Amino acid sequence: MEIIRSLQEMQLKSLELIRQNKQIGFVATMGFFHEGHTNLMKRAKQENDIVVTSIFVNPLQFGPSEDFEQYPRDEQQDTTVAEQVGVDYLFLPEIQDMYPTPLIISMNIEDRADVLCGRSRPGHFEGVITVLSKLFHIIQPSKTYFGMKDAQQVAVVDALIKDLNFPIELIPVSTTREKDGLAKSSRNVYLTNKERQEAPQLYGALNKGRKLVVDGETNTDIIVKEVMDVINNHTSGRIDYVELLSYPQLEPVSVVNRPVVLAVAVHFNRARLIDNLLFDEYGNLIKQI
Amino acid sequence: MEIIRSLQEMQLKSLELIRQNKQIGFVATMGFFHEGHTNLMKRAKQENDIVVTSIFVNPLQFGPSEDFEQYPRDEQQDTTVAEQVGVDYLFLPEIQDMYPTPLIISMNIEDRADVLCGRSRPGHFEGVITVLSKLFHIIQPSKTYFGMKDAQQVAVVDALIKDLNFPIELIPVSTTREKDGLAKSSRNVYLTNKERQEAPQLYGALNKGRKLVVDGETNTDIIVKEVMDVINNHTSGRIDYVELLSYPQLEPVSVVNRPVVLAVAVHFNRARLIDNLLFDEYGNLIKQI
Repeated sequence: MEIIRSLQEMQLKSLELIRQNKQIGFVATMGFFHEGHTNLMKRAKQENDIVVTSIFVNPLQFGPSEDFEQYPRDEQQDTTVAEQVGVDYLFLPEIQDMYPTPLIISMNIEDRADVLCGRSRPGHFEGVITVLSKLFHIIQPSKTYFGMKDAQQVAVVDALIKDLNFPIELIPVSTTREKDGLAKSSRNVYLTNKERQEAPQLYGALNKGRKLVVDGETNTDIIVKEVMDVINNHTSGRIDYVELLSYPQLEPVSVVNRPVVLAVAVHFNRARLIDNLLFDEYGNLIKQI
Repeated sequence: MEIIRSLQEMQLKSLELIRQNKQIGFVATMGFFHEGHTNLMKRAKQENDIVVTSIFVNPLQFGPSEDFEQYPRDEQQDTTVAEQVGVDYLFLPEIQDMYPTPLIISMNIEDRADVLCGRSRPGHFEGVITVLSKLFHIIQPSKTYFGMKDAQQVAVVDALIKDLNFPIELIPVSTTREKDGLAKSSRNVYLTNKERQEAPQLYGALNKGRKLVVDGETNTDIIVKEVMDVINNHTSGRIDYVELLSYPQLEPVSVVNRPVVLAVAVHFNRARLIDNLLFDEYGNLIKQI
């Protein structure tokens, strides 16, 4: 595995690979790898000649009161993990190279961003699409892999790629879970033991909501209330949101009569966790957008 | 020369060419070719394996009261001209394929856009950077060619490419002029005979302004006034702006002590003409940004 820190070197290397007719699979990350990340890399490995993974904790997508400084980092361990998984190039750009001067061009998202995590994180998805546009231009992948744990991010990247005709195929990958159902997350390390025991209830609550749909319930309010009750009754977390929206449009629906995402975000003491399920009007899980 | 109308076909063709190690030179146009356009194509032909030219009158960059409907079009003649010049692929996308659904992602420009033409054409450069991002992703050129007649557009495209790390080199090409100095423009056909005789005075006025700098004048206000006087005294046009700004930052300067653009826009009866000169603090013409 080769480690590249220079934007220009990475861009030239990618161009060289493409001109050698190699297909690049790209996994954009903020590092502190867990099985969720490595599953993306393994999938990319299966489907491409070359796998490039980037680690960049992007300041642009953190709000002023968010955990940019505290976001967990472990470059050495990540390097070992990426090499073991078979990543070919690990791209580790520096902030001053990614943002050498104030940006003159800004990117905005008119839709899909003012719900779920976007509501409590103004500017977050603008930061995401800006850094991804930059990374896509540097790495020039054929396919890019994103975890469905952040279903809204997948919907936003889907819009980015389609609206601007990026020559890239978006591959959403199912959420990786602990044995007890908790979605893997870099932020799980900040849970207390007690919170860690409660946290699988997020997945449990989502499944209870989905079960209602399987059993014939279509009323969004009833489903959302059920999910909230489970979380409130079985965890010490404070609910940020429980929402049921059309997918990938992320528009409110009053009845479940199309593909939807049922999503939650819950604040624990030092970690805000998110999780979701995608299912159709019969409650059948959907893997793709 | 091959004519391609389908976005997907063009994108696949470009990928195929790149994987064959061909370098693509790209000229984005709105058609109605004159020598200004063909000079861009000829330059691209010299410097690349393959030349792609697009013709797309982009509704996104026209204001509601502007001349989108009236913008001159002649696809048949343009096709003949492009073929003669040696263009390899003429890309003619349809509006409904470029904008099949309302855009979710929007692009904005925080700087360089609220002066010169941007001031009187709100949203114009947002439309330009959006359509260019799309075209760049479809055509995937190594180099892209823009005429310096629209110096502001060159400055904006420069920001787009640098801020978002497009793997593309921007090549600004000197303005092509009629023998009497008038900058070639698709809109010149809308001048009356009398206006056509007056129109070279725009270039004359810019040169008088530059001459002042050659002779030691550095005061922006004095230079701008001289240019305005020439236009007002020798044409029936109505001045939209005469501005002298740093280049490519396009910031106001009170004295000429760095590279600047001296630019004019003048309304005639049915055509609004623009022109500019780029020069340094000694009045020496500059060709590149």
